[in-house]
Amino acid sequence: MKPEPGPHESELTRVTAAIDPTDPECERAAWERLDSLTKPPRSLGRLEQIAARVARIQRTSKPSVARKAVILAAADHGVVAEGVSPYPQDVTWQMVANFVSGGAAINQIARSVGAEVLVYDVGVAHDLSGHDAVIGRKVAAGTQNMANGPAMTREQCAQAVSVGVRAATDAIDDGFTLIGTGEMGIGNSTAAAALTAAYTGRGPLDVVGPGTGLDEQGIAHKAHVVERALAVNRVDRLDALGVLAAVGGLEIAALAGVMIGCAARRTACVVDGYISGAAALSACALCPQAADYLLASHLSAEPGHRIVLEKLGLEPVFTLDMRLGEGTGAALAFGVIDAACAVLSGMATFAEAGVSGAG
Amino acid sequence: MKPEPGPHESELTRVTAAIDPTDPECERAAWERLDSLTKPPRSLGRLEQIAARVARIQRTSKPSVARKAVILAAADHGVVAEGVSPYPQDVTWQMVANFVSGGAAINQIARSVGAEVLVYDVGVAHDLSGHDAVIGRKVAAGTQNMANGPAMTREQCAQAVSVGVRAATDAIDDGFTLIGTGEMGIGNSTAAAALTAAYTGRGPLDVVGPGTGLDEQGIAHKAHVVERALAVNRVDRLDALGVLAAVGGLEIAALAGVMIGCAARRTACVVDGYISGAAALSACALCPQAADYLLASHLSAEPGHRIVLEKLGLEPVFTLDMRLGEGTGAALAFGVIDAACAVLSGMATFAEAGVSGAG
Repeated sequence: MKPEPGPHESELTRVTAAIDPTDPECERAAWERLDSLTKPPRSLGRLEQIAARVARIQRTSKPSVARKAVILAAADHGVVAEGVSPYPQDVTWQMVANFVSGGAAINQIARSVGAEVLVYDVGVAHDLSGHDAVIGRKVAAGTQNMANGPAMTREQCAQAVSVGVRAATDAIDDGFTLIGTGEMGIGNSTAAAALTAAYTGRGPLDVVGPGTGLDEQGIAHKAHVVERALAVNRVDRLDALGVLAAVGGLEIAALAGVMIGCAARRTACVVDGYISGAAALSACALCPQAADYLLASHLSAEPGHRIVLEKLGLEPVFTLDMRLGEGTGAALAFGVIDAACAVLSGMATFAEAGVSGAG
Repeated sequence: MKPEPGPHESELTRVTAAIDPTDPECERAAWERLDSLTKPPRSLGRLEQIAARVARIQRTSKPSVARKAVILAAADHGVVAEGVSPYPQDVTWQMVANFVSGGAAINQIARSVGAEVLVYDVGVAHDLSGHDAVIGRKVAAGTQNMANGPAMTREQCAQAVSVGVRAATDAIDDGFTLIGTGEMGIGNSTAAAALTAAYTGRGPLDVVGPGTGLDEQGIAHKAHVVERALAVNRVDRLDALGVLAAVGGLEIAALAGVMIGCAARRTACVVDGYISGAAALSACALCPQAADYLLASHLSAEPGHRIVLEKLGLEPVFTLDMRLGEGTGAALAFGVIDAACAVLSGMATFAEAGVSGAG
């Protein structure tokens, strides 16, 4: 039996109820325009499909994604007590410091595609208040150990989702027209695996992988931890928020919120890898309409990711065996999405260019 | 028996003989650096491999591809008389006009990744002298019909290769640090198929495809035309220039030259789709060393392209079902290659960032 909703959960229900469907008429108009441009019809393949999807989301036949941001949410995980990661928990805050000083992979990739990185502390177990560039929205100093009980309370989880909704709408208000998701949190591939198992019904062994670098024995142990977490919490997959609170993470909840916030503002959201994919499963469980506003960036080397994308019905832009997170795949996909929109919005038609058609 | 080489062929022999191998020691240093950066080792997958390859080509452990250009070569094909394309020959020059006025797909994609497009007329059957932005290097007003005899004389072919070598070295002298290949030429997927068959020994049916949009009957006819061209010209696959002259194209020869010119200047060259791939086969037949300077951009929807990439030993960056040419795939890959180099050259090491390593 679900408890009475708290204020954050009630707010979330209001936000999700107000989300509009995307517009198939705009997609149809985009295809009509694509087929009139100076190229053999459909010869840009997936690029045209991406452009048509953004057109549908933005409700225009000339979409633009000029200003791009990765919203990177960081938080810690109580489940690291089970020894699920080869890296110590301190790496979470150390990497946050690295993000704001510009030394991480996401900084280089974002700069190379002309995107900004907005770093949110949703639940890092370390005082980051000295880092001005970190946007402080700490809900708790990390989650509880999901192998012993729920990772978060229901209200903490809803609050973390709200942080993400607000992060997205603030970014969109600031003029960003394409949002990507990124995360940092030692232990979060265990949470992603537990969420994927819970939302899809797949077994722990199907959804766990090496994460940052576990060996076979480590992966088997991680599967046991996921199994324990699912058993201890007796999650009900039809209770979307309950699942996310029990076996999710604060940064994952926030990213689910980012996706919901993007949908609320009719803005395309690019999903990074496996952890972000688990956030997307959560977002779509909370609000099925949100799925239409998502684009998948890459297929991660983490084995559970394929299951996530199948469940979401999303096709990745590329497969580059990446498994880093941070939003690196999303940022890399920004370049392709930008090019796709540039083609649809900027090319001349056969008539405009005076080019003969097929005989 | 090969004829005495003319001046262009002799010059080409001098250029190819002077090409140095790439430096495995620089690649090793790049991997050492990649493994010291703040990310789990190898967690950026193919991106790291791309960065290491560019490091090896540029002979540095901090490669940069800041200034990028697509060299787009255009020419006409006598084989269009056989009805191998649904588009009339005039589309070649009409699209060249479209390139220089900025209305084509390549213009939008190049702009979106910050690359320039350098348009060369190597053999368009139309007077383009009124278009100032077209770089006029016409060797002939299109090729002869390869189904009846050689497409070019040996010297014409060597001259077209020289045009490409010079185009690459001029661009590199102008400060471009990454070059991509693009082409326009109605009928050129037939030439690409004939070259692929000749250089790989595969049959015509394995290497022909719809091109700009043939139906099944059209594809079968195209295979017959390729078969006739190979039979009439009795090509000797060990005579690289002879093959290219007999069943190639002026723009394909020029792009082979671009690849050789890049190798001569230790510069990475990004190969676009099937037609550019046939140029790469030609370049590597003329000069096997050139292969080490190439990066494949995408796997085209054109079925023969897979055979080309296998023969070249190149793995594409992505598969997006593109089949347009113009350099669109190469330009799109520029973004990924730029990001890869930015990661290798710009990230902080664990020591620099004060991040703990794996336990």
